[in-house]
Amino acid sequence: MTDFTVADILQASIRLRAKVVRTPVLRSEKIDKELGCRVLFKMEALQRSGAFKFRGASNKLMALEPGQRARGVAAYSSGNHGHAVAAAAALAGCPAVIVIPQDAPAIKVENCRWWGAEVVLYDPATQDRREICEGIASERGMALIPPFDDQLVMAGQGTVGLELAEQLDALEVVPDAVLVPCSGGGLSAGVFTAMRGFYPALECGLVEPAGFEKMARSLQTGSPERRGPGVVLMDGLSGPVTGERPLRVLQALCARPYSAGDANVLKAMALAFRHLKVVLEPAGAAGLAAILQRPGEWAGKNVAVVCSGGNVDPVVFERALAVGA
Amino acid sequence: MTDFTVADILQASIRLRAKVVRTPVLRSEKIDKELGCRVLFKMEALQRSGAFKFRGASNKLMALEPGQRARGVAAYSSGNHGHAVAAAAALAGCPAVIVIPQDAPAIKVENCRWWGAEVVLYDPATQDRREICEGIASERGMALIPPFDDQLVMAGQGTVGLELAEQLDALEVVPDAVLVPCSGGGLSAGVFTAMRGFYPALECGLVEPAGFEKMARSLQTGSPERRGPGVVLMDGLSGPVTGERPLRVLQALCARPYSAGDANVLKAMALAFRHLKVVLEPAGAAGLAAILQRPGEWAGKNVAVVCSGGNVDPVVFERALAVGA
Repeated sequence: MTDFTVADILQASIRLRAKVVRTPVLRSEKIDKELGCRVLFKMEALQRSGAFKFRGASNKLMALEPGQRARGVAAYSSGNHGHAVAAAAALAGCPAVIVIPQDAPAIKVENCRWWGAEVVLYDPATQDRREICEGIASERGMALIPPFDDQLVMAGQGTVGLELAEQLDALEVVPDAVLVPCSGGGLSAGVFTAMRGFYPALECGLVEPAGFEKMARSLQTGSPERRGPGVVLMDGLSGPVTGERPLRVLQALCARPYSAGDANVLKAMALAFRHLKVVLEPAGAAGLAAILQRPGEWAGKNVAVVCSGGNVDPVVFERALAVGA
Repeated sequence: MTDFTVADILQASIRLRAKVVRTPVLRSEKIDKELGCRVLFKMEALQRSGAFKFRGASNKLMALEPGQRARGVAAYSSGNHGHAVAAAAALAGCPAVIVIPQDAPAIKVENCRWWGAEVVLYDPATQDRREICEGIASERGMALIPPFDDQLVMAGQGTVGLELAEQLDALEVVPDAVLVPCSGGGLSAGVFTAMRGFYPALECGLVEPAGFEKMARSLQTGSPERRGPGVVLMDGLSGPVTGERPLRVLQALCARPYSAGDANVLKAMALAFRHLKVVLEPAGAAGLAAILQRPGEWAGKNVAVVCSGGNVDPVVFERALAVGA
């Protein structure tokens, strides 16, 4: 059971109205024809900080009481969440500490520092990032902003789904399915909760990297599961474990797990380059890749796809261009 | 003198409301800091067919009387205009002939054929594209859709400026300048006409490829001028001559000519990749490149930049990625 409802998301949407970009829904007749279904791309790569994570971070931050907010916030992340917390804190004028593994790409550290955040490096082989972060937070009286296992964070991410439902309604399109990239589960739990209210028969599909389906296993066992070792091309979906709260929501909504392999992810990135003119990071292309992975599965249907982010290294992007669309 | 006014553009905007994408205005704090001014990017790369050209083509097409529209349309172009006419005709359910030089990249021909248009190839060394196109049009009773020297086409492109003014107003930003890529002059004439009504003190800057400043020369001589020989990286701005009607409008509005070199265009494309997550073609990056070209020129100002399109070959895009942002 879960007490996370669309009311949490409505509250977040009021709180965030002037702070987040209302990202567009993009379409391509050519992609539709190639895939045999109507695809509606909710483009969170165009969100501030280049990913949906800015929504959850901002909602959590703006919900703090002003005195707490002034003392600042702390977060652990090697990717988009850290960048988003740094940006949200800077725009709210409060200090931030981001805990990042010492072997993370230099660009991740730079992104946080650019926004004025203090970066604390740790050794992922011997130290626990959550412990370090909680230590700093309690020592300095800062509030912790968790990446996904938190109702305010989930509610912020859910505003993607609320906007998407409004935009689909304006386009007079009733979606048969929505596909959302999934790691900890914050985005999918938020989006599915927001959209099921509008569309009771909607298929809620979460997409994980093939070979790293920790949420699919969590839904089977009923408990948060960890991912196995290995390098994940979709670095935004490479977190170690799923979230307890998101898992409860996904269970209650009977979310269906899908997966996508690297070849289809690179092809999806190339399709977005060629037909949508948008830069997607591998995780951001997971939804489109899931459609490529199962040709015919959504034939003739309306499929909404959340493209979660666009923070990709030029070298990885060139791999996608080389694969071609 | 010119009788082209904002009323033409308002009419186009009503005609096009349900047909074109209301493209977003994107921003990046990082680009602003690097450039020392506030830049607002009107993102026409996200328009249908990947460029603003769809607006002008659709406006001309939809303004035809229904019997004429049913007989179809003809256009000459090796680039975005041909693609846009093919798409607009297909979506209106009428036939189209596109006249393309036989040495154009295969992708240009494919794009037109994909939409069901008939492609007629010609030899640019010995044949005149306009003559061929006018011949086909009169023979088959088709309407010619000119690329820029036409009030309905200019009015369609002007809807970019009308949307931009509304969006800036909603953001509570008063622009000091607007920068628009310029070849024949249809887009700049339309955008400047639309925006001067809102902002009487607005600087209207047109941007041409360095070394190929045919509109700058046209403004000096008062007559349409041709460009010199040579290969232009900004292929969208490589047309042979400026337009008579656009020139009159640009004269009346005291438009200021700027230019941008290839190195800054590639850097602008890389900045858009990294910070905006958008794919720009070289011509689409001309406005941002013009700011890079003249550091300090717009220091502390609000500059609206029209990013006209995103139809770029992966090989050219890789050149921009290699330059880096």
